[in-house]
Amino acid sequence: MNFNEEALKLHAEHKGKIEIRSKVPVNTRDDLSTAYTPGVAEPCRKIHADKKEVYKYTAKGNLVAVVSDGTAVLGLGDIGPEAAMPVMEGKAILFKEFGNVDAFPICLDTKDTEEIIQAVKAIAPCFGGVNLEDIASPKCFEVEARLEKELDIPVFHDDQHGTAVVVTAALLNALKVVGKKIEEIHVVLNGPGSAGTAIIKMLLAAGVKHIIACDENGILYKDRGVGIKDHKEMLCGITNLEDKRGDLADALVGADVFIGVSVGGALKPEMIKTMAKDPIVFAMANPTPEIMYDEAMAAGVKVMGTGRSDFPNQINNVLAFPGIFRGALDCGARDINYDMKVAAAHAIAELVTDDKLCAEYIIPGALEPGVAAHVAERVAEAAVRSGAIRK
Amino acid sequence: MNFNEEALKLHAEHKGKIEIRSKVPVNTRDDLSTAYTPGVAEPCRKIHADKKEVYKYTAKGNLVAVVSDGTAVLGLGDIGPEAAMPVMEGKAILFKEFGNVDAFPICLDTKDTEEIIQAVKAIAPCFGGVNLEDIASPKCFEVEARLEKELDIPVFHDDQHGTAVVVTAALLNALKVVGKKIEEIHVVLNGPGSAGTAIIKMLLAAGVKHIIACDENGILYKDRGVGIKDHKEMLCGITNLEDKRGDLADALVGADVFIGVSVGGALKPEMIKTMAKDPIVFAMANPTPEIMYDEAMAAGVKVMGTGRSDFPNQINNVLAFPGIFRGALDCGARDINYDMKVAAAHAIAELVTDDKLCAEYIIPGALEPGVAAHVAERVAEAAVRSGAIRK
Repeated sequence: MNFNEEALKLHAEHKGKIEIRSKVPVNTRDDLSTAYTPGVAEPCRKIHADKKEVYKYTAKGNLVAVVSDGTAVLGLGDIGPEAAMPVMEGKAILFKEFGNVDAFPICLDTKDTEEIIQAVKAIAPCFGGVNLEDIASPKCFEVEARLEKELDIPVFHDDQHGTAVVVTAALLNALKVVGKKIEEIHVVLNGPGSAGTAIIKMLLAAGVKHIIACDENGILYKDRGVGIKDHKEMLCGITNLEDKRGDLADALVGADVFIGVSVGGALKPEMIKTMAKDPIVFAMANPTPEIMYDEAMAAGVKVMGTGRSDFPNQINNVLAFPGIFRGALDCGARDINYDMKVAAAHAIAELVTDDKLCAEYIIPGALEPGVAAHVAERVAEAAVRSGAIRK
Repeated sequence: MNFNEEALKLHAEHKGKIEIRSKVPVNTRDDLSTAYTPGVAEPCRKIHADKKEVYKYTAKGNLVAVVSDGTAVLGLGDIGPEAAMPVMEGKAILFKEFGNVDAFPICLDTKDTEEIIQAVKAIAPCFGGVNLEDIASPKCFEVEARLEKELDIPVFHDDQHGTAVVVTAALLNALKVVGKKIEEIHVVLNGPGSAGTAIIKMLLAAGVKHIIACDENGILYKDRGVGIKDHKEMLCGITNLEDKRGDLADALVGADVFIGVSVGGALKPEMIKTMAKDPIVFAMANPTPEIMYDEAMAAGVKVMGTGRSDFPNQINNVLAFPGIFRGALDCGARDINYDMKVAAAHAIAELVTDDKLCAEYIIPGALEPGVAAHVAERVAEAAVRSGAIRK
């Protein structure tokens, strides 16, 4: 199947992928008087008297803005807000299909950090949550941090945290397969951009102690100088406890896990051969992974995951974001904190029962039913436990 | 039927009135690969290569933002963006039901003119049009004018122009009933706020020559001083050609038409008795009209319209906005200009055929089928004729 041609046909035939529908009847004069004037004034009055009632009488509580400035769309880069629209609509329909979340694409005509923040804050009253998407690094960090702080609804940058949650889920089960403990493993992450940074923070929150991050200049360490600023400076403070030096090959000697969110072909078979016994490799560069599946297995990899649907163990964000938002919206969470993200990772991991768990099946498939519902339940529990509920 | 109670029940039961649905299947792996990655990259590339293609491959061309800052909601006033949400959702479902337009509520957390403009401009890439709603006067004038100028999609403040279009339609047919010519009639408009100002401009565009505007200080004229600034100053330049002075009662002596967008009870029976033969009265204050139907008819009114559905001739915006946007979106209009608005008024008026036209039936009912389609056709024709099509 030629997905490019099919996609063009599908998108042109339907003129996009989303529509807005009424949940209530609009057929009779009485319908109009109840859903619109004069009846509609009454829920308005109730909300005016107590703003919290907006969750009771409007769609806000189930509406999520899928916000992008179009600066880091798929592997296409800075293609602008209009060209980002098909991706954001796609995200919206996944939200609905998997999480019964009503998501709406908001493609912004600005690349300015402050203007992005102001625009999202301005439209926040009609949304129950904000999913940031395909916003370039490092801008995305400040956009997320500020919005999280300044809004009383959950804000979640899926490229960062969605990926991190699914990687963590996959790692939890991969460790079961190889019989290693999370506190003891050595992880090397290649490509500490927005997703890479979130994965590192998430793995630390999930119990990993030893992580080394590598970029195009090799291992990150405090005194490296070259390219060590902003989030990479922060990463030097939480990774590489042994203060190692060198390139990716040096980092991988004796490592248990390789996680790639970098570029196709970055991982060589000879590097894998220097890793510890039963190496775990998550090669998620898209569309060409850091190493192809067959080549990795031939080099001795025990458990392999990629971003692709044509290999086993697809690390697919759709396993995470619909359930995470479903859970956060259901329980009235103000934030999506690390407790909730770690809970989501465990929820995804535990869906692979021990009798089915093996090297080729460490995470559920994207279309397996019930994933979002289970994730939502665990996320909501974690939200309550960690005090993330909106007052 | 107690619409207040019914409305509360309906809104709480469904948690608001809108949902976002997929127009394409999302069931199989191939569906995902076509609607989302990897296939979705192809429409992204096409739009990146030629921005106009966004209308071909995305929902933008059928998406309208229903934008409010919550400062003039129904008769409730400045109740804030959250409390405005039920009205904006209501508007959205009317858009869908009557015009098959996908409209989405955008309730803004700012009352600042410049911030409103910036927020709408920021989110414009994902919308094919902007419907401004319940934004207080005089701010609404600048918001609309600036957005109209700075965006390449149609911007329409329904409280102004929707009302004006339906009033004009009603007047065209009322004049047929009483056998008067539009160029010769004398009109008195009471309440020159945003709707009143738009009605005046629209009637002038439709051929009316003689209009007098009155506010709480009486007839508007250049040297009056009190309250003559901003849009009222502008109105002095286009109304009251005979430079009359006095109050509403003075203005109405010999007038053919009273149009009220003011307050309940403003029009007295004794004023009606001083009007010309066969007076036409549109008393649209809500929920209590400037004069009640029975009282007006007893005082000698020939044709009466109100904003209410329990009297004949309901002046209801729903006759206008769904068709106007349908037409503007269908033909790729950049603006909604006066030619298009006048065309919409004629379209609504001509749906009342001569054999049915009478004092009690000058405009179609809100639920009569085919109104929006007919309005859309005429509006699109007018857009082409007047050169309003986007390049």
